[in-house]
Amino acid sequence: MRITRIPDRECQDTLRRLGFGRLGCAREDQPYIVPIYFVYEPDHLYGFATFGQKIEWMRGNPHVCIEADEILGQDNWVSVVALGRYEELPDTREYAQERRKAQSLLEKRAMWWQTAYVESDLRGKSEPTLPVFYCVHIEEMSGLRASPEGSPVRVR
Amino acid sequence: MRITRIPDRECQDTLRRLGFGRLGCAREDQPYIVPIYFVYEPDHLYGFATFGQKIEWMRGNPHVCIEADEILGQDNWVSVVALGRYEELPDTREYAQERRKAQSLLEKRAMWWQTAYVESDLRGKSEPTLPVFYCVHIEEMSGLRASPEGSPVRVR
Repeated sequence: MRITRIPDRECQDTLRRLGFGRLGCAREDQPYIVPIYFVYEPDHLYGFATFGQKIEWMRGNPHVCIEADEILGQDNWVSVVALGRYEELPDTREYAQERRKAQSLLEKRAMWWQTAYVESDLRGKSEPTLPVFYCVHIEEMSGLRASPEGSPVRVR
Repeated sequence: MRITRIPDRECQDTLRRLGFGRLGCAREDQPYIVPIYFVYEPDHLYGFATFGQKIEWMRGNPHVCIEADEILGQDNWVSVVALGRYEELPDTREYAQERRKAQSLLEKRAMWWQTAYVESDLRGKSEPTLPVFYCVHIEEMSGLRASPEGSPVRVR
């Protein structure tokens, strides 16, 4: 197995291809992780949720972390971690265009609405739930890839 | 597709079975996520790393989040999130017994040492790296399961 850092370009390709990962947010030193679907575009990604704990936390603290990985085997995987800043895309005139864009891109992802709505359903709310669209502006990114060919990992 | 909250017992079974997931830590409001191998036992789990960013962060702030999921298909998955507290198991007389136990359990997991050592290797350190064993005491846990049978998800 050979493990290498992957260049930014490959991190970007991985995020674009996977479109599924985990989002980490934090409140008062407590981190929280949720699985998310997303659409990646250079330097940012779009996601969707119904109002709940993670939205509340990200409104309070916009620093987030996105992790996405693809594990094909113990010696064949790729993992990307991105740090970024949450920005909500509210249903206002100012954000109308970017919100429409996010919605249109996310709709192409099958089932994108399910994880979001299901959470809301489980919270047992009877009133209609407003969708929350958001953008994560990526500020830092790094990735690792393991491949079965090549020299074995050196263990001290 | 039917999505249900799973009881604690099933969350525990899932963590025990998977032994792989993501750990979230936070420093100064910035969350960070890394993939980890772990061994789950009731109310806590054991993990391993070489000294690096995540260890430094968890020493500074012991509040962590563990997420583990198994995605068999878009309508067939399970996801568990646990909040807990990081405790390092240093190489001292006081911790000797628990450290040995953690090491012994983790050694049964194939490749457990690889992700940890590889990280260290990539940091380009030439001196031997000391392993860091840790325990996460789980304080809260929740999980969701989607299964293909049953009624479709209601979308408002």
